[in-house]
Amino acid sequence: MYIPNFDDMLAAHARIMPYIHRTPILTSSYLNDLTGAQLFFKCENFQKAGAFKVRGASNAVFGLSNEDAAKGVCTHSSGNHALSLSYAAGRRGIPCNVVMPRTAPQAKKDAVIGYGGIITECEPSTTSREEVFAQVQAKTGGDFVHPYNDPRVIAGQGTCSFEFMEQMEAEYGGPVEMMVAPIGGGGMISGTCLTLSHIAPDIQIIASEPEQADDAYRSFKAGHIIADDAPDTIADGLKVPLKDLTWHFVSNHVSDILTCTEQEIIDAMKMTWQRMKIVIEPSCAVPLATIIKNKDRFAGKRVGIIITGGNVDLDLLPWVK
Amino acid sequence: MYIPNFDDMLAAHARIMPYIHRTPILTSSYLNDLTGAQLFFKCENFQKAGAFKVRGASNAVFGLSNEDAAKGVCTHSSGNHALSLSYAAGRRGIPCNVVMPRTAPQAKKDAVIGYGGIITECEPSTTSREEVFAQVQAKTGGDFVHPYNDPRVIAGQGTCSFEFMEQMEAEYGGPVEMMVAPIGGGGMISGTCLTLSHIAPDIQIIASEPEQADDAYRSFKAGHIIADDAPDTIADGLKVPLKDLTWHFVSNHVSDILTCTEQEIIDAMKMTWQRMKIVIEPSCAVPLATIIKNKDRFAGKRVGIIITGGNVDLDLLPWVK
Repeated sequence: MYIPNFDDMLAAHARIMPYIHRTPILTSSYLNDLTGAQLFFKCENFQKAGAFKVRGASNAVFGLSNEDAAKGVCTHSSGNHALSLSYAAGRRGIPCNVVMPRTAPQAKKDAVIGYGGIITECEPSTTSREEVFAQVQAKTGGDFVHPYNDPRVIAGQGTCSFEFMEQMEAEYGGPVEMMVAPIGGGGMISGTCLTLSHIAPDIQIIASEPEQADDAYRSFKAGHIIADDAPDTIADGLKVPLKDLTWHFVSNHVSDILTCTEQEIIDAMKMTWQRMKIVIEPSCAVPLATIIKNKDRFAGKRVGIIITGGNVDLDLLPWVK
Repeated sequence: MYIPNFDDMLAAHARIMPYIHRTPILTSSYLNDLTGAQLFFKCENFQKAGAFKVRGASNAVFGLSNEDAAKGVCTHSSGNHALSLSYAAGRRGIPCNVVMPRTAPQAKKDAVIGYGGIITECEPSTTSREEVFAQVQAKTGGDFVHPYNDPRVIAGQGTCSFEFMEQMEAEYGGPVEMMVAPIGGGGMISGTCLTLSHIAPDIQIIASEPEQADDAYRSFKAGHIIADDAPDTIADGLKVPLKDLTWHFVSNHVSDILTCTEQEIIDAMKMTWQRMKIVIEPSCAVPLATIIKNKDRFAGKRVGIIITGGNVDLDLLPWVK
């Protein structure tokens, strides 16, 4: 198991720069008043392909030798990694095969196809996904870019916190005291740990998770990986389990994992749309929901929040009955 | 009739700076590909109180003498001016009375109340609004800040294009060739004309309007103001007629007025949410809808678009049946 390091992150940053946006950091006086904290939102919903996952995917795709790249790439993903890998492969001009649960949001499937990716559907369970994927990979021979348990992907996701720290210094007078990101498979959190443990080890890293998909929370408390086969949450990006690489970062560098209910996720999502005027996925509302639920932990602190993506099916909004 | 000038705009900018955001300019490769133009969106949906109108309202409120300010301010508005004036009055600590149509979006009414404004409802017609307002003004004696036919308001709205030009120079390598904004009463368009006719008279200024509220279009073609009493469009910010001051700017500086259907507005609105990940009101989708409808006019050009506001009732989205 190769553990990606800070130099891998720096190399990733240089490699992917031409293909990604330097996304803005937004603030909201309303949400600051509500939480008593100073919140800084890194808006990866404005990222290329609508999600932070394009960082890791681009690092993997553009790091391939010409010979390996010719065979294309393949992956399984609940959505954003699928379309990010399709985007990156499209930019390099190589094929991309993705296995997606048939229940993934239509907006994400459409985006994959729009970027030139080829979809094979599976059932919405980890078991089915892994079975179908094995068939697809055997058939295509493409390089497998795992959505999170891949050193190239984690190094790529780490560029987000690196940019965040630069921007905080340049635009907001210095760093934060805490950093909060959602946790599913743990790719973004691992990248965050990779970068911050090197350049700002005093920053507390908090992971946020839906109660109805709390395998990372239970793993964290138990001290070893506990996986659910088919968790059910509106935060469709957070249904996957930790794996050995992401567990390494989570177990070594995460200070705590906080959870919240489905209704708290929906409320925080709607509040973000209403007050910040940005379109975010349910997954990105999980950090804000846990901050609102645990105000005492955050009050008076400068807190970074990673808004992970904005690929929502606008015809199926959770607060519209 | 006092016509505000460039110095009034500069004075407004200095006066309101502490109370407003310098909103970002966003771009979208998807929308550039779709239209064949290079589009630059000035995002006043991220503005304080969620709309550009806070610029003019703040200029009026903070320009009052202490003696006049003590009596408060009052206005009538379909929404954004009401909450912008409430916000500005709240920042100065003076009362604000607003007359709003009972059909105005609940989100806007809630926001007015949240900022401390006092609402009196009227019927959704120009006649009713003016009648009810006369009663409110007589009772309160507050300074009347008209939503658009007021030199202080127009000078304030002009600060938006001024900022836009500075940002284009600093961030996007120079100016645009065309500037497109929605037109209702004409406040934003007049401010745009005021500023651009002084610093960049070569930039074509285009106004965009719903077919179902096309009084500005018909006025422009006729050469004099034609007012509708109760136009019906989803673009609730654009139902009001031109007045003498805004007609002055429109008739002297606007190159053309383009119109579009209700469905084209809804499609452009949804596309903006989906692709740009920002929450915009129906009114702000009108410029993009007219650009998509008249691609030949804009193809190959650098085009500025003013996104006027983001105060939407998230429970009543026009594409969700």
